[in-house]
Amino acid sequence: MRKYSFIALAALGFAALLNSCAKGEKSASSGALASNAAEKVYVKPGTHDDFYAFVSGGFSGQLSVYGLPSGRLFKVIPVFSQDPEKAYGYNEETKPMLNTSHGFIPWDDAHHPDISQTNGELDGRFVFINGNNTPRIAKIDLTTFETTEIIEIPNSAGNHSSSFVTENTEYVVAGTRFSVPVPQRDMPINEYKGNFKGALSFLSVDPEDGRMDIKFQLMMPGFDYDLSHPGRGKSHGWFFFTTYNTEEANSLLEVNASQNDKDFIAAVNWKVIEEYVNNGGGTKMPANYAHNVYDEHTHSATSTMKKEVLVVDPLKVPGAVYFLPTPKSPHGCDVDPSGEYIIGNGKLSADLTVHSFTKMLDAIEKKKFDGEAYGIPILKFEDVLAGTVNSGGLGPLHTEFDGKGNAYTTFFISSEVVKWKLETWEVVDRQPCYYSVGHLMIPGGNSRKPFGKYVMAMNKITKDRYLPTGPEVTQSAQLYDISGEKMELLLDFPTIGEPHYAAGIPADIVKKNSKKIFKLSENKHPHATLNDSEVRIERNGKEVHIYMTMIRSHFNPDNIEGVKVGDKVYFHVTNLEQDYDVPHGISMIGAQTSELLIMPGQTETFVWEPKQVGVWPFYCPDFCSALHQEMQGYVRVSPADSDIELSGTLGE
Amino acid sequence: MRKYSFIALAALGFAALLNSCAKGEKSASSGALASNAAEKVYVKPGTHDDFYAFVSGGFSGQLSVYGLPSGRLFKVIPVFSQDPEKAYGYNEETKPMLNTSHGFIPWDDAHHPDISQTNGELDGRFVFINGNNTPRIAKIDLTTFETTEIIEIPNSAGNHSSSFVTENTEYVVAGTRFSVPVPQRDMPINEYKGNFKGALSFLSVDPEDGRMDIKFQLMMPGFDYDLSHPGRGKSHGWFFFTTYNTEEANSLLEVNASQNDKDFIAAVNWKVIEEYVNNGGGTKMPANYAHNVYDEHTHSATSTMKKEVLVVDPLKVPGAVYFLPTPKSPHGCDVDPSGEYIIGNGKLSADLTVHSFTKMLDAIEKKKFDGEAYGIPILKFEDVLAGTVNSGGLGPLHTEFDGKGNAYTTFFISSEVVKWKLETWEVVDRQPCYYSVGHLMIPGGNSRKPFGKYVMAMNKITKDRYLPTGPEVTQSAQLYDISGEKMELLLDFPTIGEPHYAAGIPADIVKKNSKKIFKLSENKHPHATLNDSEVRIERNGKEVHIYMTMIRSHFNPDNIEGVKVGDKVYFHVTNLEQDYDVPHGISMIGAQTSELLIMPGQTETFVWEPKQVGVWPFYCPDFCSALHQEMQGYVRVSPADSDIELSGTLGE
Repeated sequence: MRKYSFIALAALGFAALLNSCAKGEKSASSGALASNAAEKVYVKPGTHDDFYAFVSGGFSGQLSVYGLPSGRLFKVIPVFSQDPEKAYGYNEETKPMLNTSHGFIPWDDAHHPDISQTNGELDGRFVFINGNNTPRIAKIDLTTFETTEIIEIPNSAGNHSSSFVTENTEYVVAGTRFSVPVPQRDMPINEYKGNFKGALSFLSVDPEDGRMDIKFQLMMPGFDYDLSHPGRGKSHGWFFFTTYNTEEANSLLEVNASQNDKDFIAAVNWKVIEEYVNNGGGTKMPANYAHNVYDEHTHSATSTMKKEVLVVDPLKVPGAVYFLPTPKSPHGCDVDPSGEYIIGNGKLSADLTVHSFTKMLDAIEKKKFDGEAYGIPILKFEDVLAGTVNSGGLGPLHTEFDGKGNAYTTFFISSEVVKWKLETWEVVDRQPCYYSVGHLMIPGGNSRKPFGKYVMAMNKITKDRYLPTGPEVTQSAQLYDISGEKMELLLDFPTIGEPHYAAGIPADIVKKNSKKIFKLSENKHPHATLNDSEVRIERNGKEVHIYMTMIRSHFNPDNIEGVKVGDKVYFHVTNLEQDYDVPHGISMIGAQTSELLIMPGQTETFVWEPKQVGVWPFYCPDFCSALHQEMQGYVRVSPADSDIELSGTLGE
Repeated sequence: MRKYSFIALAALGFAALLNSCAKGEKSASSGALASNAAEKVYVKPGTHDDFYAFVSGGFSGQLSVYGLPSGRLFKVIPVFSQDPEKAYGYNEETKPMLNTSHGFIPWDDAHHPDISQTNGELDGRFVFINGNNTPRIAKIDLTTFETTEIIEIPNSAGNHSSSFVTENTEYVVAGTRFSVPVPQRDMPINEYKGNFKGALSFLSVDPEDGRMDIKFQLMMPGFDYDLSHPGRGKSHGWFFFTTYNTEEANSLLEVNASQNDKDFIAAVNWKVIEEYVNNGGGTKMPANYAHNVYDEHTHSATSTMKKEVLVVDPLKVPGAVYFLPTPKSPHGCDVDPSGEYIIGNGKLSADLTVHSFTKMLDAIEKKKFDGEAYGIPILKFEDVLAGTVNSGGLGPLHTEFDGKGNAYTTFFISSEVVKWKLETWEVVDRQPCYYSVGHLMIPGGNSRKPFGKYVMAMNKITKDRYLPTGPEVTQSAQLYDISGEKMELLLDFPTIGEPHYAAGIPADIVKKNSKKIFKLSENKHPHATLNDSEVRIERNGKEVHIYMTMIRSHFNPDNIEGVKVGDKVYFHVTNLEQDYDVPHGISMIGAQTSELLIMPGQTETFVWEPKQVGVWPFYCPDFCSALHQEMQGYVRVSPADSDIELSGTLGE
């Protein structure tokens, strides 16, 4: 193995830490207007926050729901990872949600939530979010706050430039970060250059029920596609993707992918490609990817393997793709509310590059090209440049907008948020972050209509900001008031997992649609027990099916006999409650699965394979009434050769 | 199946909701001193909370670490449930932590954290917590904030009257909630009465390293043992357990276990029993239970099956156990800081029963018995009663103390905290809870030295208190200032899982001991790679072992060839960083496991079984430096019959 010296690169990291630590000390001793800030983030007990913030859990694989300005965590919605608390990925109903072409996968790395839009404005119907590691896009329904669909993305790897929606949610877009052989094949890694491909996937979203489908995959050169955003307003119909590693290095990328002075932003005219494929363009390629759908009436998911995907060669669609040169391994790729400006943040630079959509169209029309890459025209940097922001910071990553002509950019290395003006490109304010900020979020900041009251910074390192918790410390968000000329730091609040990115929305758009219960009358679960007269136990060989109900504060049945060692016992349990906030749970000693936590009107199933004779208790693990402790039962397990009949009783 | 009408019992639940809703409306419209409360809970960015609160996740199975007074969540420590984010229960190192006599179990129901004590005061070394469902006790080390030991409790079920420590942490105690046949056997459930047993387990804790061992199990009558607390001060050497279902009903307990006017508090003289077993008393009984220990130097857990447990018959130890009659299915069992008063809260009553330890000793000495139950003497209620608190509330559950002569009791049905005076028993204040409060917590409230600045109420129902999140809404904590005569509600904050109970401690006792990194020089993991010269890949049949390092911002190696379809690939990955708060992660596309998230100086292992040929990427999912996106690599997977040699390279 080769040893390698990384002093220069390590220094980048150390500089960031030193810088941020020094700022931390300064802030802690400088007297901020604590009282004023305290009142601004205090949401009086019994009153509600103004905004929902849907915060990616990053490496937790989940989506967290916070309130702003309080920073309080209301719910962790399981998406890509198993959740023992909610039985997600453990009960029979949700296991299919985590199926993939690689089999059942209990984890992923969730990155970029984006809220559905209508006419370029947030409509609050759905949140989409990408799984990076085993490429997938998930959809969360904001009436139930549950994940209701996950679709795998073939030909993709490190699904990072995802999941952003076009302005009428026509598409949710998923771009590959890592290029791979397409189709996959056994080949030397060091033959990457010129042979690997980068797939940019456009998933259609049904306007009625939101159902996703891969409309087409654009098969691009083997770069790394890092982030993306849709055009909007005047640029609606286009999508923009940053690239890095245009060097096509396959090893030690921290050195080898930082050689080119400029990489590209890829501008994709999806309207043109859509027309092309609607007219029969593209190639159907064999593929194998899972499409998992959770049905709200059966309370159950199904997983279907899809076997083909439509692939488009960009060279076959004139006018489909152009490259905009952008300095220094650009990371963020953000579009202002008007759709005119495309901001590429070179993560190794100090300056921000702003491209003009109008200039881009003009340059395309006049064919002012500066060569091509794998046949895709490269526009001249100077011809598309709208302006440069001389930030004075280091390591710019992401930019959002307040709808009042201001942009806000995060700087990872210098740990700060910098506010600057669109069109004049002048820096007007800067505030430190604690520490090493990645994304930032303004509610609606990725739409035509931002709500520019707060910006939330999402920080990777916290070190000394909170009480210590051993070697592993929390990552963190910071909330700034941006209603005035100068930003004001209001609050640090820790987060679940890595707060990779977030999508915010005024609470009023969402809360009125939030479901309170599942109606029993609409429960179409095949194993539902909708009233006590349907309670029963059935044996089918070694399978035992218990059709059980729960209501304050008992199970029916609660004494079960006739189960034998070696049986596979299915508990199909229906919560008969029809009041808001009266879930019940069930758990069985020794069961090699999670509890069930069942909402009113819902049915769920767990499996228990008893291995020892005896009398084994089950109980409700959710404190549901004054007699919750009494909500329990027993199952008698007899030897495999026993002839005790199956029976279930209550109160006898 | 029998149908049953539960109108009367359901009404109890409805009354609670109606009551609490009405109070909710009143509070929302009454103008509290919001500004003052805001300042009291505001912890200025960069400054620290005053207290740690270790809050049980209840049905999440985990332990959450919050700061008070801010209510901010710093960490969720995985204890009894799998955690895909932290790889707990997924990586090779921690899978043994979840082993039991029933096999690997991915979930449990965590209930009562308790902090270790020295001389009856919190010492901040460990937190203990019980798993209810598959009975276990866990220990969390407060230098690393990691779970380092889990021991299963045999002969137990619904391990609820746990895990409370004696005043020098001599023992952590685990009492069964459900009685079961001991030993387990195939018998009719309705022969419960007189045949089932209730085990109260005393686990010794090594004063040096904290290692747990079951010293003895006291085999009690087949009641339900609900909660417990140690004597302290004058009553050190005793332990008190509430019972319910002294009726020994086996079905429909919400009716059948509420028949007796009084159940018991069992007073156990563990000093006498300790002497008895130290002198050879007790019976060694065959058993089968897991003892799982995580070693901080190998960063790995081992699971050992123990085969025998020492059982004590209380009738054979004179003076060991007495029953104190206590009205109305008592739930909480709390002992005041002096050790004189034992409070039993009858959950179906309005009044609190306070027993006197001094009177109890006197009655025992004078043999003032009122009969016996299964041979255990019952003391006369009037002879041991210190006083009754006429609360005016309904459904009292738990009581804590402020060290200034006041007690605070929660009422589930009337949703409130009631403050009353020890010795005069008069109620001096009451504040509503939102809604249906279970436990409450005052830091140190279960010790000789409470820190009576705040009380935290833990509520089961929240309904309208926060922005809605569909049918499933969060459970919640509420923080009250108790420094004055009247309690003042400061803050509502949502919680992870069910905030079943909590243990609080002044931050200064814990934070100074918190580890920042694991020293590489102390890493004794058998598969550690402590420097780049040890990087290697080895094949052993179909097993491939990759000994890999990670440091900002690359893996060594990052190009791996020679892996074949059908191989079982072990990635043993060591994080070479030695700076605070620089974890790295690793994840591999399609791996049927979680990521690894590896702290500085630590080694972890995941397994990948590639099923398809191709070139497959892995990457770091934790944003670790400005060049984090470049921290990736590829593995080439060749057909099973390929003869490509194993190789790993970096930068070649």
